[in-house]
Amino acid sequence: MIILHHCVSARSFRPLWLLEELGLPYELRMWPFPPRAMAREFLSENPLGTVPLLVDGATRMSESAGICQYLAARHSSGGLDVAVDDPAFGAYLNWLHMSDATLTFPQTLVLRYTYFETGERLQPQVASDYARWFLARLRSVEEALQSAEFLCAGRFTAADVAVGYALLLAEHLGLDQQFPPAVSAYWARLKQRPAYQQALQIQHQAALDQGVPTTPAPDIRP
Amino acid sequence: MIILHHCVSARSFRPLWLLEELGLPYELRMWPFPPRAMAREFLSENPLGTVPLLVDGATRMSESAGICQYLAARHSSGGLDVAVDDPAFGAYLNWLHMSDATLTFPQTLVLRYTYFETGERLQPQVASDYARWFLARLRSVEEALQSAEFLCAGRFTAADVAVGYALLLAEHLGLDQQFPPAVSAYWARLKQRPAYQQALQIQHQAALDQGVPTTPAPDIRP
Repeated sequence: MIILHHCVSARSFRPLWLLEELGLPYELRMWPFPPRAMAREFLSENPLGTVPLLVDGATRMSESAGICQYLAARHSSGGLDVAVDDPAFGAYLNWLHMSDATLTFPQTLVLRYTYFETGERLQPQVASDYARWFLARLRSVEEALQSAEFLCAGRFTAADVAVGYALLLAEHLGLDQQFPPAVSAYWARLKQRPAYQQALQIQHQAALDQGVPTTPAPDIRP
Repeated sequence: MIILHHCVSARSFRPLWLLEELGLPYELRMWPFPPRAMAREFLSENPLGTVPLLVDGATRMSESAGICQYLAARHSSGGLDVAVDDPAFGAYLNWLHMSDATLTFPQTLVLRYTYFETGERLQPQVASDYARWFLARLRSVEEALQSAEFLCAGRFTAADVAVGYALLLAEHLGLDQQFPPAVSAYWARLKQRPAYQQALQIQHQAALDQGVPTTPAPDIRP
């Protein structure tokens, strides 16, 4: 049985959403955010103290976009994966890596230096630098969607889940107001997917059941 | 023919090093760093203005760790790749993703707010926050190397090149003084590899031949 360690709407939402897309059975273990500060016992599961942590037999993974690729390759019979010999293989890998390294990390700076830090440690300049940095990189998503419904391979893949999470985080931070038009329409389409909505409901119910906050912390919109 | 767009010792060093490990033919096109500011004509190649840009027929990729995975899977007959059905597949993907999203991005903040910005835009607090953040995440590398020579699969893979570059960047930034012991020994071993040394020589000669600076910019050590 796959076990996913998760905090509400954190990067671990990527594997949660993908597990719902794949219809796989799994156990969801909820933690308050950030677990390395709020639940020190989590360090015995993952010494880095970060979510996601995915456990699948002897496999333990902590990188959310890598987990998406892993689950799609191992567990979806190719439905959400792109094979090595597919002409879109390079594009697929590029989107998976871009989703976190290029489209999520800059937003964590906005989050940290606007909401997590306090007093003199707030850094509006850095938050602004990396909001702009993120929006500039989003141009590559806009370009890819000019003539396509999904990012690559002419169909929905794990890369759409991985990039979709970066758009969800942007919405939490209020950056979605500045999405270019094709990104905005794409994000609206992704949010209509039953598995996305199911993942939102599941994390909410699991947070209630397991006694952790049901909203992302710190208290960012929406 | 594969074309790699590269700046001296930037993230594009990952694919350069891997191409040398694989012994593949390629064309190397050098740019001053950062190309989006120093060579506006590069924007016609990659609208994001970032390196690497790898062109392999119709495939165009900009994410350095994704390119490592792509080249290893497509071009090395499995020698530096880890296959989907290998027990180490999950670990392999995790290292590839971690190499950039977790081990390189934080260092770019040190670089930017210590060396690139000037005057009031320097941010020693942020540089210090993310130097510490990087070193904390390095613990997972230290742990993996306690009982192994390489990161996964019991052999040298593309993941070692991807993580190795993060260690090279740390050396440039002077953070290597704080490497834990197994990471330090691993990095010393990686630097002994003929393909690594060849890649350093090739970028130096290509920079001379193509008239771009032979040292990383801004002028960081060593």
